[in-house]
Amino acid sequence: MDYTLAQLAKKVEGRVKGDPDLRVEGLGTLESGTPNQIGFLANPKYQSQLASTTLGAVLVKDDELSLAVENAIIVKNPYLAFAALSHLFVPTFQQWEGVNVSCVISKDATIAENVIIAPNVVIDADAVIEDGCVIGAGCVIGRGVRIGSKCHIYPNVTLYHDVSIGADCIIHSGVVIGADGFGFAPTKKGWEKINQLGSVEIGNRVEIGANTTIDRGAIENTKIGDGVKIDNQVQIAHNVVIGDNTAIAGCAAIAGSTKIGSFCTIAGGVGIVGHLKIADCVHITAMSLVSKSILKEGSYSSGTGLEPTDKWRRSAARLRRIDDMAKQISKLEQQVNKLLTEG
Amino acid sequence: MDYTLAQLAKKVEGRVKGDPDLRVEGLGTLESGTPNQIGFLANPKYQSQLASTTLGAVLVKDDELSLAVENAIIVKNPYLAFAALSHLFVPTFQQWEGVNVSCVISKDATIAENVIIAPNVVIDADAVIEDGCVIGAGCVIGRGVRIGSKCHIYPNVTLYHDVSIGADCIIHSGVVIGADGFGFAPTKKGWEKINQLGSVEIGNRVEIGANTTIDRGAIENTKIGDGVKIDNQVQIAHNVVIGDNTAIAGCAAIAGSTKIGSFCTIAGGVGIVGHLKIADCVHITAMSLVSKSILKEGSYSSGTGLEPTDKWRRSAARLRRIDDMAKQISKLEQQVNKLLTEG
Amino acid sequence: MDYTLAQLAKKVEGRVKGDPDLRVEGLGTLESGTPNQIGFLANPKYQSQLASTTLGAVLVKDDELSLAVENAIIVKNPYLAFAALSHLFVPTFQQWEGVNVSCVISKDATIAENVIIAPNVVIDADAVIEDGCVIGAGCVIGRGVRIGSKCHIYPNVTLYHDVSIGADCIIHSGVVIGADGFGFAPTKKGWEKINQLGSVEIGNRVEIGANTTIDRGAIENTKIGDGVKIDNQVQIAHNVVIGDNTAIAGCAAIAGSTKIGSFCTIAGGVGIVGHLKIADCVHITAMSLVSKSILKEGSYSSGTGLEPTDKWRRSAARLRRIDDMAKQISKLEQQVNKLLTEG
Repeated sequence: MDYTLAQLAKKVEGRVKGDPDLRVEGLGTLESGTPNQIGFLANPKYQSQLASTTLGAVLVKDDELSLAVENAIIVKNPYLAFAALSHLFVPTFQQWEGVNVSCVISKDATIAENVIIAPNVVIDADAVIEDGCVIGAGCVIGRGVRIGSKCHIYPNVTLYHDVSIGADCIIHSGVVIGADGFGFAPTKKGWEKINQLGSVEIGNRVEIGANTTIDRGAIENTKIGDGVKIDNQVQIAHNVVIGDNTAIAGCAAIAGSTKIGSFCTIAGGVGIVGHLKIADCVHITAMSLVSKSILKEGSYSSGTGLEPTDKWRRSAARLRRIDDMAKQISKLEQQVNKLLTEG
Repeated sequence: MDYTLAQLAKKVEGRVKGDPDLRVEGLGTLESGTPNQIGFLANPKYQSQLASTTLGAVLVKDDELSLAVENAIIVKNPYLAFAALSHLFVPTFQQWEGVNVSCVISKDATIAENVIIAPNVVIDADAVIEDGCVIGAGCVIGRGVRIGSKCHIYPNVTLYHDVSIGADCIIHSGVVIGADGFGFAPTKKGWEKINQLGSVEIGNRVEIGANTTIDRGAIENTKIGDGVKIDNQVQIAHNVVIGDNTAIAGCAAIAGSTKIGSFCTIAGGVGIVGHLKIADCVHITAMSLVSKSILKEGSYSSGTGLEPTDKWRRSAARLRRIDDMAKQISKLEQQVNKLLTEG
Repeated sequence: MDYTLAQLAKKVEGRVKGDPDLRVEGLGTLESGTPNQIGFLANPKYQSQLASTTLGAVLVKDDELSLAVENAIIVKNPYLAFAALSHLFVPTFQQWEGVNVSCVISKDATIAENVIIAPNVVIDADAVIEDGCVIGAGCVIGRGVRIGSKCHIYPNVTLYHDVSIGADCIIHSGVVIGADGFGFAPTKKGWEKINQLGSVEIGNRVEIGANTTIDRGAIENTKIGDGVKIDNQVQIAHNVVIGDNTAIAGCAAIAGSTKIGSFCTIAGGVGIVGHLKIADCVHITAMSLVSKSILKEGSYSSGTGLEPTDKWRRSAARLRRIDDMAKQISKLEQQVNKLLTEG
């Protein structure tokens, strides 16, 4: 698994500066890479690091930047080129082959030819697993689940009955898709369960991070669009609809029936309450709470800045009295106006 | 699995308007249901949707509303009736029967007669599983665990030793009950573990959402009351006590030794710090932090409203200076009072 | 499993007051312990409970406090002594022995002699499990993983390829270590995945709570120092570095490439954005958002206090106008100064 600089340049449609025969064995950082690694400079702010880098070569945006290093590949978008090169250096990360004998697979499930199913996987009736999938150890695939071609499901994932996954998806360990949405009718004696009769539809090229949960719909389906990227420990409630290519960072939570547009970026820890609409191209900053629909693209935030706890305590106490403060100001304005006009 | 409108009306103690022989095959929404489905109108706000619904029939509250549709069931509480009907249309969601041969079950465990145990379940010594339970694939049931009758444990759940679950509970995939509470004594060299010697007691009719965690007590038990409903990814720390019929939405977290009353509703992402008492019938809105005990029923909130990020940044900067603002106001009040009295 | 008071005193280097032959069978609380249990009083605030305690004996700090009870052990740090005694009363919590026949273990894995591997564990090639480890049922150990001696891995844990765990670690159920960091390069068509080629290095004596996730690094490794204690449902993103003996409470989330010092305490629900540096001995209070580096030890907070929802709504509405309020105050100051100087 090593390449010449010229080979790598060809893969990213870039131009070599320096030694085209330099052998590259992996990727590294500007700060601590080795002479056999290639890295990238995306943000010109870190340009000064080029001079001192220990990397063998660097992906840069223009000839000027390439002057600072001996070997470089000049390419339009260094970060994107770096992403492309990252695919070349993936190690062999598991060694199971075919369908392991320890698996328990219903005779009514349909498994395509070249699928790898690691040990102790359980697959219920009527499930369909298409060509080129890798299913990690300990996964439980429910009745009637469909998994499109070339998906990689990591170990210990649970897919409830009738969940549908598109092609080229990556689902990380601990993910649960299709558990019951949180739906109960209140009575004086307690809560009456509303059986969740919908399912979950996941598009193509979706990645879902470890321990994320996506609930099945109450009546209709919860839907995740094509190209959506979801980080770890995200909670997506029943009947949520997420548009194509939206990215959701760790620990965000989206309550029931909310519809999110395409190309949104939801930062970590964000909460979005139920039954809202979020437009396309909306960005929400970390740990904000969205409690109203957002109809216009742009960046949105809530919360307060961090302070030393002592000072914060005073601010928080004052904030409880902000309504009084506003009234004091109004009164002062009236008084001063009176004084000014009388004067 | 289909019913006449008359049959459904009988089940919910309602009255048919229209064709009693209409065949209903499932549940649908007002917006996109089919002529073979029944839906409901709970909130009169959406009354206008009745006129255009494609549903075959609708659960409504009174005769007046039923005029807008051809077929209806008139019933006191349409949402509750809908919940009742949802039980009729649950599909066959798994096909395992009896105790799968792949399971590893200690000879010292006690499994009642008509229990379904899906493949690859592991049950340690002295566990007791009562009548009518369904245990999903890949579950691990620790030593001495007790599971009451008619529980449904979904796949890949982990119950640590000595955890006790009541009857008629539903536990979703990825749940971990009985892991060690987070207890350490500080020393200059680091943290000394306090072994967690209590357990977890879960009442009857409790539902626990996917990937939720409930820790075992340090000395005494963590306790979840009857009829409690817990959503996904909720964290309940050691020695928490939760009263009957309280509902806790996704991603909420309750720190150690806090006692929560009955019939509370804790919204998504709420945090409750440790050693507090929360009265009965308290509602906490989404993502609020509860840092003091709440002794009176009612609704409570913290946090700030969402704003465009630019405007939010100015607000947050001002908020850091709110203490100064309050002092400026006081000074102005003194000065203006002086001017007024002098005048 | 019972001890005399004298035996316990010796273990904690304390001094007996009362009956040295009192038999102690377990730990209890001041409020509801039994005559065969020992408890502790750490906080003098609860001193009044000594008089009424039903415990057989109490760990206390000085002779004066011991006067209130018949039997006591006088010891410098009662809470630390209690932690030490908690190790004596751990019950037999699992009964599997050796390597269970149901496990699927690659012939290229190396398992030390006295290791317990519970049923249905899957271990891939080149994994190394050292002496004295206990691996819970259903764990999946990836290719090339190393687990140091005397680790306890609870059931249903997933360790991705090449993850390295030190000695004496405790990892609770549902934990996922080494899943891909959330790294994508944006393009007009969507997100291009950056393969995550680093791994995760975990030090010695680390404890990791249930359903916590720690992602592998993009290029270099994510690193968790010695003695770090992590609670449930914590999310640690790629390339985070955590210093020795830092403790992180439930549901906290740390974004990519952030470096946290030693002996920090991060409370529950805290969010720390990416690429920051946090000094040693920093404390962050519950649910705060850290969006800038913290270079000085101390306690830090963000957020607002809890209020009844009605009052909170008014405060939140006022807060949106705080910038205007500040301008009103400035204007008033100018006007009043003018009035004062003119007067």
